[in-house]
Amino acid sequence: MLVVQKYGGTSVGSTERIRLVAERIQRTLALGHQCVVVVSAMGHSTDALVDLAKELSDQPDAREMDSLLATGEQVSASLLAMRLAHLGTPAQSLTGWQAGIETERVHGNARVTSIATTHLKSLLSQGITPIVTGFQGIAEGHVTTLGRGGSDTSAVALAAALEADACEIYTDVDGVYTTDPRVVKQARKLAHVSYDEMLELANLGAQVLHPRAVENAKHFSVPLVVRSSFSEEEGTSVVAITENALEDRQVVTGIAFERQVARIAVIGVPLAQHGLATIFSELASHGVNVDVIVQSVVEVAAVDVSFTVNEPDVKQAVDIVEGLRSDLGYTAVESQTDLAKVSIVGAGMISNPGVAAQMFVTLRDANIAVHMVSTSEIKVSCVVSASEVERAVKALHATFVEADAEASLTGAGSKTK
Amino acid sequence: MLVVQKYGGTSVGSTERIRLVAERIQRTLALGHQCVVVVSAMGHSTDALVDLAKELSDQPDAREMDSLLATGEQVSASLLAMRLAHLGTPAQSLTGWQAGIETERVHGNARVTSIATTHLKSLLSQGITPIVTGFQGIAEGHVTTLGRGGSDTSAVALAAALEADACEIYTDVDGVYTTDPRVVKQARKLAHVSYDEMLELANLGAQVLHPRAVENAKHFSVPLVVRSSFSEEEGTSVVAITENALEDRQVVTGIAFERQVARIAVIGVPLAQHGLATIFSELASHGVNVDVIVQSVVEVAAVDVSFTVNEPDVKQAVDIVEGLRSDLGYTAVESQTDLAKVSIVGAGMISNPGVAAQMFVTLRDANIAVHMVSTSEIKVSCVVSASEVERAVKALHATFVEADAEASLTGAGSKTK
Repeated sequence: MLVVQKYGGTSVGSTERIRLVAERIQRTLALGHQCVVVVSAMGHSTDALVDLAKELSDQPDAREMDSLLATGEQVSASLLAMRLAHLGTPAQSLTGWQAGIETERVHGNARVTSIATTHLKSLLSQGITPIVTGFQGIAEGHVTTLGRGGSDTSAVALAAALEADACEIYTDVDGVYTTDPRVVKQARKLAHVSYDEMLELANLGAQVLHPRAVENAKHFSVPLVVRSSFSEEEGTSVVAITENALEDRQVVTGIAFERQVARIAVIGVPLAQHGLATIFSELASHGVNVDVIVQSVVEVAAVDVSFTVNEPDVKQAVDIVEGLRSDLGYTAVESQTDLAKVSIVGAGMISNPGVAAQMFVTLRDANIAVHMVSTSEIKVSCVVSASEVERAVKALHATFVEADAEASLTGAGSKTK
Repeated sequence: MLVVQKYGGTSVGSTERIRLVAERIQRTLALGHQCVVVVSAMGHSTDALVDLAKELSDQPDAREMDSLLATGEQVSASLLAMRLAHLGTPAQSLTGWQAGIETERVHGNARVTSIATTHLKSLLSQGITPIVTGFQGIAEGHVTTLGRGGSDTSAVALAAALEADACEIYTDVDGVYTTDPRVVKQARKLAHVSYDEMLELANLGAQVLHPRAVENAKHFSVPLVVRSSFSEEEGTSVVAITENALEDRQVVTGIAFERQVARIAVIGVPLAQHGLATIFSELASHGVNVDVIVQSVVEVAAVDVSFTVNEPDVKQAVDIVEGLRSDLGYTAVESQTDLAKVSIVGAGMISNPGVAAQMFVTLRDANIAVHMVSTSEIKVSCVVSASEVERAVKALHATFVEADAEASLTGAGSKTK
């Protein structure tokens, strides 16, 4: 079996931890598996490099920033290979270019275009374990980096190119939970989650697995496992949803939530003005990320458009919309802060039309007002007051997860930190 | 004019210093020159990487050590290129492989075999200043490093390959001195020194310029300049000796010295035993460096062989020689520690046969006993007691340098730290 193992920054954050990672790799090899390892930079070493750059330029050159940051993973890869060699396990560190990871030439946020696997396969056939630097590649001879969550992306891309049997993401939590265990102590670890559910749960699990890596894993059908590098616990498998998986009748997989939400409402936009296109193009061109969008018809010839943004962006977003007033001829702009978003996520919802209603009943019974609603095939999101989000999450977890718990207990009992 | 500028670890030791280096490069470009820059790792960053490696292995894998250490220069090169870009000066950092620096595959101490200059020349023709990582190259796709003084070697190799008009070595001293200014306050900076003299003065100037770089510079006739990155002072030019240079009648260029010298004498080695070959082969195979070697005939069929080693090696060297006693049939082995070596160096000596005698007279007048003598065409070395070495250096400096000072004053007045 060929396994790609990715170790995040915390997992290689010190020489003590690098020793533990080396031992885990040895145990994997001892089972007769082949292993390709992907590492992030040690702990906060990337931040230290960014600080140095900031001392030299308020807007550091993107090419040079990539060359600079790429050294972080080179250090951890070399140290890990060195430790394995010390233990008698043949290993070689490989930078992005040595591993043949080609990307577009976009500095700071490049996409992997191809991986030349000949050299990696040659090492594996010689019994040498490649330790590949995550987060980086090469484009026309220039070092590029893959942006946030880049090492997850590297691992998934390598697993896809090598047609690996599994891609294990080692991190500092032991899997994906039904909700944040810091908010709901009954939260339990999921044994399985589908790629789509994982994407919807991403704002719970951003530290666990980057959405871009999940998208790539889904696209290339790479079987992912998220598990802790500090324990032997089984983690959470991220897989394509199957009929079998549906049979476990777990309608709602998890409760996601997000704080610092603000709502902006543009009232009375004449229908003829195509307000949606104008407003959201303008916001996008200014780099304002919009999440939930709701349009409701209030009268025959006009609509109200509401949307949410991250709270720190609210003033900029309002200013942008104000600037469109003469073009659009709307009646008013309103904004509201101190909101939050709570979502129930589950592939099983597709075949359970009553789930949204059950969510609204739960929130009503808890006396929590819903300001906005948005739905997708596997998710229902409600915008509520920030002060009520934890109560909402607890109530929804009780209704959808704990009530189902007897039916399908997974690896419960262990908690994230 | 094409200039290669090399900045050592102290010169790029902080972001403040990197700013100063960027400004100096701009001033060079403003004169209409083209510039290829070579940098060392920042300050003591290499030591920090070595410490990490040592925590993982008492004898770190050589390939991985090279990959690890190479990151140090990548960081400083990227930061410097970033700073130049910030100031509006186009620049690109290049690692060993990006700059096309091929070496033998010997990890930790590789020799440069070739430099593919096409890419460097293309950057220069586009008005982009290449910032090349010193100390490193590539061999068969593996990162290699060039060993001690490697960045000097990189700079000289690049200057040779690019047929540069000058190779400037920026460091924390402002040139090469007639002797160590900490010992003789009248020491003065040399305007010129020949490659051979520089090599003989190397133990004075090891921090200034690595002997290997000087050898390469001599071989490829690369004109070197050693100067300070902290001042605008003219430095010292290291050049091939010319008839003109001889005309300045400076017979002795500088007074070199070395502490921690030990002497070993092997007494009564039968001539038939070829003692020299046996003794020094055996010492070399054990990695003991031998400096001065003197053989004297004491009787018709036997010789005394004396040699010096670094004081910390003396016990090992004596043990090795003791082990050869039955093979060689010598009479006795003696050793003496607390010695030092003082040398007068100067290309002018070749045509001045009385110089050695003048040295002995100077030492006799100062009442300093000479334990061993060794000569080369441009150097005379005497082994003296360690307690007398400073007096010896002062006396010799007074005789050979200060007495000549009126005739050829160079950039005197400035001191190393």
